[in-house]
Amino acid sequence: MAVIQTAPSVQPQAPSAHSTHRVREILSWYESDNPGTKTNIARLLNHGHLAGTGKLVILPVDQGFEHGPARSFAVNPAGYDPNYHFEVAIQAGCNAYAAPLGFIEAAAARHAGEIPLILKMNNHDVLHDEKDPIPAVTASVKDALRLGCVAIGFTIYPGSAHAQTMYGQLRAAAEEAKQSGLAVVVWSYPRGSSLSKEGETGIDVAAYAAHIAAELGAHIVKVKLPSPHIEQAEAQKAYTKAAVPIGTLAERVRHVVQSTFDGRRIVIFSGGAKKDNDEDVFDEARAIRDGGGFGSIIGRNSFQRPKEHALKFLDTIMRIYGGEMQ
Amino acid sequence: MAVIQTAPSVQPQAPSAHSTHRVREILSWYESDNPGTKTNIARLLNHGHLAGTGKLVILPVDQGFEHGPARSFAVNPAGYDPNYHFEVAIQAGCNAYAAPLGFIEAAAARHAGEIPLILKMNNHDVLHDEKDPIPAVTASVKDALRLGCVAIGFTIYPGSAHAQTMYGQLRAAAEEAKQSGLAVVVWSYPRGSSLSKEGETGIDVAAYAAHIAAELGAHIVKVKLPSPHIEQAEAQKAYTKAAVPIGTLAERVRHVVQSTFDGRRIVIFSGGAKKDNDEDVFDEARAIRDGGGFGSIIGRNSFQRPKEHALKFLDTIMRIYGGEMQ
Amino acid sequence: MAVIQTAPSVQPQAPSAHSTHRVREILSWYESDNPGTKTNIARLLNHGHLAGTGKLVILPVDQGFEHGPARSFAVNPAGYDPNYHFEVAIQAGCNAYAAPLGFIEAAAARHAGEIPLILKMNNHDVLHDEKDPIPAVTASVKDALRLGCVAIGFTIYPGSAHAQTMYGQLRAAAEEAKQSGLAVVVWSYPRGSSLSKEGETGIDVAAYAAHIAAELGAHIVKVKLPSPHIEQAEAQKAYTKAAVPIGTLAERVRHVVQSTFDGRRIVIFSGGAKKDNDEDVFDEARAIRDGGGFGSIIGRNSFQRPKEHALKFLDTIMRIYGGEMQ
Amino acid sequence: MAVIQTAPSVQPQAPSAHSTHRVREILSWYESDNPGTKTNIARLLNHGHLAGTGKLVILPVDQGFEHGPARSFAVNPAGYDPNYHFEVAIQAGCNAYAAPLGFIEAAAARHAGEIPLILKMNNHDVLHDEKDPIPAVTASVKDALRLGCVAIGFTIYPGSAHAQTMYGQLRAAAEEAKQSGLAVVVWSYPRGSSLSKEGETGIDVAAYAAHIAAELGAHIVKVKLPSPHIEQAEAQKAYTKAAVPIGTLAERVRHVVQSTFDGRRIVIFSGGAKKDNDEDVFDEARAIRDGGGFGSIIGRNSFQRPKEHALKFLDTIMRIYGGEMQ
Amino acid sequence: MAVIQTAPSVQPQAPSAHSTHRVREILSWYESDNPGTKTNIARLLNHGHLAGTGKLVILPVDQGFEHGPARSFAVNPAGYDPNYHFEVAIQAGCNAYAAPLGFIEAAAARHAGEIPLILKMNNHDVLHDEKDPIPAVTASVKDALRLGCVAIGFTIYPGSAHAQTMYGQLRAAAEEAKQSGLAVVVWSYPRGSSLSKEGETGIDVAAYAAHIAAELGAHIVKVKLPSPHIEQAEAQKAYTKAAVPIGTLAERVRHVVQSTFDGRRIVIFSGGAKKDNDEDVFDEARAIRDGGGFGSIIGRNSFQRPKEHALKFLDTIMRIYGGEMQ
Repeated sequence: MAVIQTAPSVQPQAPSAHSTHRVREILSWYESDNPGTKTNIARLLNHGHLAGTGKLVILPVDQGFEHGPARSFAVNPAGYDPNYHFEVAIQAGCNAYAAPLGFIEAAAARHAGEIPLILKMNNHDVLHDEKDPIPAVTASVKDALRLGCVAIGFTIYPGSAHAQTMYGQLRAAAEEAKQSGLAVVVWSYPRGSSLSKEGETGIDVAAYAAHIAAELGAHIVKVKLPSPHIEQAEAQKAYTKAAVPIGTLAERVRHVVQSTFDGRRIVIFSGGAKKDNDEDVFDEARAIRDGGGFGSIIGRNSFQRPKEHALKFLDTIMRIYGGEMQ
Repeated sequence: MAVIQTAPSVQPQAPSAHSTHRVREILSWYESDNPGTKTNIARLLNHGHLAGTGKLVILPVDQGFEHGPARSFAVNPAGYDPNYHFEVAIQAGCNAYAAPLGFIEAAAARHAGEIPLILKMNNHDVLHDEKDPIPAVTASVKDALRLGCVAIGFTIYPGSAHAQTMYGQLRAAAEEAKQSGLAVVVWSYPRGSSLSKEGETGIDVAAYAAHIAAELGAHIVKVKLPSPHIEQAEAQKAYTKAAVPIGTLAERVRHVVQSTFDGRRIVIFSGGAKKDNDEDVFDEARAIRDGGGFGSIIGRNSFQRPKEHALKFLDTIMRIYGGEMQ
Repeated sequence: MAVIQTAPSVQPQAPSAHSTHRVREILSWYESDNPGTKTNIARLLNHGHLAGTGKLVILPVDQGFEHGPARSFAVNPAGYDPNYHFEVAIQAGCNAYAAPLGFIEAAAARHAGEIPLILKMNNHDVLHDEKDPIPAVTASVKDALRLGCVAIGFTIYPGSAHAQTMYGQLRAAAEEAKQSGLAVVVWSYPRGSSLSKEGETGIDVAAYAAHIAAELGAHIVKVKLPSPHIEQAEAQKAYTKAAVPIGTLAERVRHVVQSTFDGRRIVIFSGGAKKDNDEDVFDEARAIRDGGGFGSIIGRNSFQRPKEHALKFLDTIMRIYGGEMQ
Repeated sequence: MAVIQTAPSVQPQAPSAHSTHRVREILSWYESDNPGTKTNIARLLNHGHLAGTGKLVILPVDQGFEHGPARSFAVNPAGYDPNYHFEVAIQAGCNAYAAPLGFIEAAAARHAGEIPLILKMNNHDVLHDEKDPIPAVTASVKDALRLGCVAIGFTIYPGSAHAQTMYGQLRAAAEEAKQSGLAVVVWSYPRGSSLSKEGETGIDVAAYAAHIAAELGAHIVKVKLPSPHIEQAEAQKAYTKAAVPIGTLAERVRHVVQSTFDGRRIVIFSGGAKKDNDEDVFDEARAIRDGGGFGSIIGRNSFQRPKEHALKFLDTIMRIYGGEMQ
Repeated sequence: MAVIQTAPSVQPQAPSAHSTHRVREILSWYESDNPGTKTNIARLLNHGHLAGTGKLVILPVDQGFEHGPARSFAVNPAGYDPNYHFEVAIQAGCNAYAAPLGFIEAAAARHAGEIPLILKMNNHDVLHDEKDPIPAVTASVKDALRLGCVAIGFTIYPGSAHAQTMYGQLRAAAEEAKQSGLAVVVWSYPRGSSLSKEGETGIDVAAYAAHIAAELGAHIVKVKLPSPHIEQAEAQKAYTKAAVPIGTLAERVRHVVQSTFDGRRIVIFSGGAKKDNDEDVFDEARAIRDGGGFGSIIGRNSFQRPKEHALKFLDTIMRIYGGEMQ
């Protein structure tokens, strides 16, 4: 089992300072929110390597629930320990760490105040096979408060026959979260019997999924990187007629960002399955950056490799986002 | 991305005044409602170009949710920005602007008090294909209060196998809205496995849908413009026997208005998909006016063209309703 | 009894428009409030003769409760009828009308949407004589919603031995009002056994009372016009040391405004008892205007004279505030 | 009126890092608290100039409420503006800013996430003269959440005839705050008809007041600096018998800290009225530091002088606490 | 019916003492829990034969509900009496006794304080045959409190089409239990139409089920002993690639423990159906012990034999866990 090092006596946060102009600009988009929610969005934006840049790299570890522990952690068994992921997120300088209730409960006190936390409020597992999936609600807004989280995370599956139920659950959770001064992060992953496998990441579907999440009141929207595929015939007509540029990944990112209130909501992109070649991930980060995306949420590519590799890998991505490297 | 102009230092509202006789007459129909709800109906009727006439032109922008962002906004990309639609509605002198939660949240504070708002409380997307659709509940009456809305908007699909669920959701929302002094606007759109495509806008079905909405307690009912088609055999007998005049659009509008408590509820009509020829829309407005309808709710025909065209287009419609032009 | 004329068919509100720069500036001070509360503050600022100027003239009629009906209305018996005051406020172009529950209930439906309403949520009568008074809570936030009000009004008596109880009642009412998108208007009237009669309007006490109301979360603060008297010895030292200019009424108004978050809260001044000479009231309005005050709340001087005189009287005051006359 | 500068484009917070050993040690004392409360205590300890040292300098501005605006701000009129104090606290590198509801509401959104906030939940004014005072409850735990505060602040007056009421109010507020993941800061100020003026700061009374606050569940206790006076005869016997060293200020601080769970609760000391000689304040800080105190809460000595002087003054105090100067 | 002997005057638990290092280590894993929950976990760990060892043997008797009374108790009719199982658990020195509401209610008062109780909050019967089962919620957290229980027990069926409902029920029950200072024990039994019979105990599924229970916030997880079977193709790849050792039962136990937060949650294993040969059960206990498991929950093998045999049988198992025999 993994040995967790005790906290090194490192330098604490530097003297306080005003938010940067960019962070203030981003906060101005959330004009209907109370200062509590704005504070928690600011905490996300003002933490870690990318603090103040308006860019975000978030470490999510819900794979144990979503795919099972061995598929998630056997390749790097240190990841079985909930503390490990806090350590990686903190040492890498991520903006936040996101996980389900149990993984947060198991290590939040030890790392209190060291990294913004996002409580993944619903989760899905693959022990049951269904065409129209629905996650289980596995935590509450009150849990997020007692665990010191800055945001709730909620997954919706647009395209599922159960989408209405999920949207309704999200609505209620978001209302309570906003009243309590928390931020709302929505994972919007199209799935369901009406969509082809290719369609789940088609550009029309991805942009639509991002828009729906924003309409449901999300402060931060997470979608998968879109392919050039167009799933819906009616959408195809619109893309053709308006000649929407979707040829490159950066162009598709730009379209998704535009579809999310013309860029007035934070949109981040998921890394997907572990890639064999890190350069592919770096190229994706470059495309997200160049397309005006706000960053990445990178799970498997981070925790399915040894810690020192993960830290170097995340550092490279952050430097791409921060403009410190091309 | 669209550039939103800062507010010009225009002339504020003119000195306050009593409501017109027509507005007071309309308000008298809602005699079971409390002064709060009457106040908010009055706000709708006393705002904009048509203030005091008893006629309404409302800008709705829920197309992003209902059809996807590219299908809605690619043709006029300024529409990706939630602020754009507030600007159009305000500058055109619409009576109100209606949109889902996210679009309202994104721009309501900036435009506080400048246009009556209708919070679209449920919404449907087309990522899942179903014969008997049901929208998701995506906002609450409390959201409407905190966002400064004058009314909730709620869609029902009479004819869907899930109609009972929707009616029940509407009932609960309307009860709470009325207690809170808000108005209730119902989009009544027949759809479902029991109706033919043609039947969805058949005159018998349209009149029936309007009546159901009124029976459910709607203050304002929105239906599609009806065709002469009659869907239900039993209804056909009644129309024939009584020789109900439904030959012209104005006659059909008159019949729908009559079916909605003999004209004692506000009934407005939706414009439908973007028309190639504006004259067709103007003719529809004339028919609505001549048939005793109360106005239009015009989305795609407004926001799927450049702003200056939209303002001119809306101005023409309002002048038709206001009697300033034939 | 007074004959209430039916509503003349006057011109409704002019085409809608953006708020003025001044109104937007004022709204920006309420940055912790939701769009609903901002909307209702905007409604106050955008209504009537002074719409858009950032100035307010409000008609309050709680004298019947506070002093008894004959003392209030015998001199102008039309005032016994609750409708009368709505008519005066509407015809004069006041920004709002404020009254206790019964007076609002009796006439709000007839005048729905014609004038912003402030529900006076607590009231005091003089049938019991006490040195440390406390008003009774006579209405609720839910009442304000069902009656279509834009704000609650709440009286506190700083200096009363019961001030803690009032502050706590106001706190709870303000929290609920803000959640519901309403504004909060606080009448802050120093009274109690610790204050001399002269001290109740002393400049130190008036500025203190305004500051307390703002600290309690008031959006709009109403105080009496201050005299040059200084009540508290410790305060006297501060005024002397800093040489705070309080010689003229305009200077004292300026000091009260400064004491209310450096002018970042709306402060209005009450007219007090019926004056024999209107010019005295006009001079006070000029001093309020010149000192940076936001307007007046004028009850007895309005309703204790015939209607036509009242309208002319109020018009003069509004023209002073609006800069249309010196 | 004061001109508030817009935020300079300064460097945001440095890359995140583990808490120091000292911070972790302090957090370990709060072992019954949930991770949310620990997170918010950590936020206080990890912010500003003294981040990570376990020492705190907090800027409180409740003087406007407690003593009146002129007595508080006339000497430095910039302080009338709520934004001014946020600016001072942020630029000085304070650990936190504490104020009543109105002062927080007026500026929290603009400064979201830039400084930990403590909502002063009850407040007292001097317009009523009483021997046994009780503050009014002026805000709620829900207010603290919606405003993004890390803690509630609550004043008790041990020695007042109303102490039981205050203790009960604190109990209820603290219970709700802890469930919501907030920290609880208690101002424990002995006052009341049973205490002599000298006794209010007597060492026995100060130590007792600190202990009571800790017993009531405070995470952070604020008391006044104690004098060598001993108020209670029975206490005098105990001090004499055990020969408790209380001759120097540092010894008295040590005794108060010991009395607060043997140093296992954070105890900070208030600066009191504006001192003529800054060296006196610096000497007090040295005594607090040498006696094992955790820092200072310095209001009037900070905001009753020009900003540049205040920043230099606070910097000196922080350097004393941080060990950067003797 | 069985004659229940009155309780012999046996030796109570030894005088209280500090928890052992092992118990303190285990408690440290539950760092987000309040002292109440930690106290109740400590009660489980500090009771009976295995007190202080960190190992647990629990007697569960929910078979009457799950399989029917005759199938459960006919072979040893003493088991029809709820008191019988309390007696066995107490006399055998089990750490706890777990049962549904009725069985607890029937005997809890007589044995108050003699053995930690776990209230089985949901239960399933076999009178209805379904492929995707869901237990009924049969008790509440308030029941657990009034009956003096240390924990609630809750069953989930990962793999069932109704898993989302169960997870949601567990979430709500666990939140309330933790607020009330109770511990949460989750029976995680994979079942449902997506799993083969063999798959229900496959090592990948068992490890996954244990992980899900921990992610849902369980303090103690109970699973069935896993077989070497691997059910899911994607999981097979992960096990092969990482060469996870699962050949022996001890290795499989070790993998399940690792999958449950790297051993930072208590995982116990169920004995399953009555074995013909006790040595098989003992060998299983040895494998659980050697694999780092925390103990057993043994129902049918205990109560489906005469009491004296049961006591001897349980004693052997405890001595295996306690290291007193190989």
